[in-house]
Amino acid sequence: MYLKDCIDTGWVSTAGKYVEKFEHMIANFTKARHVVATSSGTAALHAIFSALNIGCDDEVIVPSFTFVGTANAVTYTGATPHFVDIERISLGLDAKKLRKHLKSITTRENAELINCKTGKRIAAIVCVHAFGHPSDLDALSDLSNEFRIPLIEDAAEALGSYYNHKHTGTFGRASILSFNGNKTITTGGGGAILTNDTTLADKLRYLTSTAKEKHQWEFIHQEIGFNYRLPNINAALGCAQMEKLPDFLIQKRKLAKAYKEAFSSIDGVNIFSEPRWAKSNYWLNFLVLETSDVSFRDKSLAALNNAGYGARPAWRPMHLLPMFKTAYRSDLSVTEDMYARIINVPSSSQLSERLPK
Amino acid sequence: MYLKDCIDTGWVSTAGKYVEKFEHMIANFTKARHVVATSSGTAALHAIFSALNIGCDDEVIVPSFTFVGTANAVTYTGATPHFVDIERISLGLDAKKLRKHLKSITTRENAELINCKTGKRIAAIVCVHAFGHPSDLDALSDLSNEFRIPLIEDAAEALGSYYNHKHTGTFGRASILSFNGNKTITTGGGGAILTNDTTLADKLRYLTSTAKEKHQWEFIHQEIGFNYRLPNINAALGCAQMEKLPDFLIQKRKLAKAYKEAFSSIDGVNIFSEPRWAKSNYWLNFLVLETSDVSFRDKSLAALNNAGYGARPAWRPMHLLPMFKTAYRSDLSVTEDMYARIINVPSSSQLSERLPK
Repeated sequence: MYLKDCIDTGWVSTAGKYVEKFEHMIANFTKARHVVATSSGTAALHAIFSALNIGCDDEVIVPSFTFVGTANAVTYTGATPHFVDIERISLGLDAKKLRKHLKSITTRENAELINCKTGKRIAAIVCVHAFGHPSDLDALSDLSNEFRIPLIEDAAEALGSYYNHKHTGTFGRASILSFNGNKTITTGGGGAILTNDTTLADKLRYLTSTAKEKHQWEFIHQEIGFNYRLPNINAALGCAQMEKLPDFLIQKRKLAKAYKEAFSSIDGVNIFSEPRWAKSNYWLNFLVLETSDVSFRDKSLAALNNAGYGARPAWRPMHLLPMFKTAYRSDLSVTEDMYARIINVPSSSQLSERLPK
Repeated sequence: MYLKDCIDTGWVSTAGKYVEKFEHMIANFTKARHVVATSSGTAALHAIFSALNIGCDDEVIVPSFTFVGTANAVTYTGATPHFVDIERISLGLDAKKLRKHLKSITTRENAELINCKTGKRIAAIVCVHAFGHPSDLDALSDLSNEFRIPLIEDAAEALGSYYNHKHTGTFGRASILSFNGNKTITTGGGGAILTNDTTLADKLRYLTSTAKEKHQWEFIHQEIGFNYRLPNINAALGCAQMEKLPDFLIQKRKLAKAYKEAFSSIDGVNIFSEPRWAKSNYWLNFLVLETSDVSFRDKSLAALNNAGYGARPAWRPMHLLPMFKTAYRSDLSVTEDMYARIINVPSSSQLSERLPK
């Protein structure tokens, strides 16, 4: 219905009422003060890094255990990702291990945190709520304050996930969501930035719409911007999806529960459950194998796929990809271990319809 | 109807049949061998520069007379735009003047063309078919061959425009179209790459979809890629629009003719007509004032806007924007002169319906 109105009125592009409506709906749902809709989650991250003036001489702390978009967005600014390890309980950044790592390799020069090994400024920490499960946001917020570098949440997969009853994406200086086709809700392709900082929100709205100045008729741009705004037609789809979100989340929890019950009596494998601080959206369910023998995982993947189940491993960790092989990193033993054990299993909210009543 | 099918089948995102159908429709219309749909025209340009390995030590020749996206896309790779002048007849690059400029400032080191003044490699020439009017593509193709640097066409505004009966965007090594909301056809937001080079097309398809390797289940990326694919829902809209394109083009020529007649008897101003080599889409009509006194232009703009006509000046030339003030440039006297004289007038294909029959 929203889509039909969008087509009928001819407002399908970057102007039009659905972008604003969609942004309001996300703000209401997450309780973020400001929402800026973008063309993708990766674009949203890139815009945040740019707005924070992150560039060539900088490093950004990123978990190696993430989708490639997180690390790619760092490189778009000229900066380098600096990969650190995760904890088993959430698959998010291990705050204790990160504190120890930062203490051992950094020094403070003027107001800046410098990596002594590379000479680069460490400009931000990006945490990722992997598969929709919240990272330990209290511990990471403390760390961010202690080292005086901003925390940015990659909540691409975490719409509908809460850390101690507060929505993910509302803890950091700025955060992102993704509405790609595989996400809990979709706009076809799209993303959003969440922030409580009004100045930053204005800057991000400006940067994502080619940094065009407000003027009655002139085309003037004061700095380099991006064509990253979400088209109205995609926002219209997003509005319709937002209305269904509460139901999607119920279906996803049902499915997670069914997986839990189905695997409870099977030896050698556990289904992952939300960490104690979380109410997760269970965007993507996964098994954790007891053995970290990767050939066992691959045999299981082959068997599942041959039987018609679209099982997948976790993303190959960033530090093992050729383009990031020279990027600085901490010990990544938990990342490598979990990568070898995880099997993602089909998790669409529509699957719960097939469960026994 | 396409959109409804797209929603009903649930394939709204990057997978789905409409992306391929839309690419085929554009290929058929333009006679380009390969078409890769993207999330915007700017994204399409950025992907081409990346595929051609343009980076930090490079300059890219760009007309100063263009939309900011052309120059911004150059900077996304780390390269610098190098601004050159246009000719009055087409508002496109002046090939003769550019030849003279390149001869006076460049040298050849090994296989590369070096700007002696900056020490940087000149990696490509981007021509822009301003307001839909084709640049002098034969002269620019000759220049590209002579200096052995690729020609890239920014045909963002030129869908339906022909140079000597051949569609714009099919002369250069690769070219881009835009389907932003203000264009002849729209996908809400979107763009496309055209190329006749199969290897380059494969590379661009790979880079614009996060450089993900083909693998039965693994997420492996060999290099830094982009999330630049057009969502299926936007492609569905594009398919419907492509069916209407021939009619849009007829309406646009009608409107251009009506403007021509209306202004033929008015002193001090001319309506711009397609150059002799062109059949233009007349995407955006514009007046050329006989005086280059910019205060006269601004008074005319104020009068037109106060009377309810959405008249606009041309884009402020790139070399006058603060972020490009240190970029290298040739003499830009024609650019500055034309900027002071041009007034864009409303040009929607729907306007022709209001013309007297």
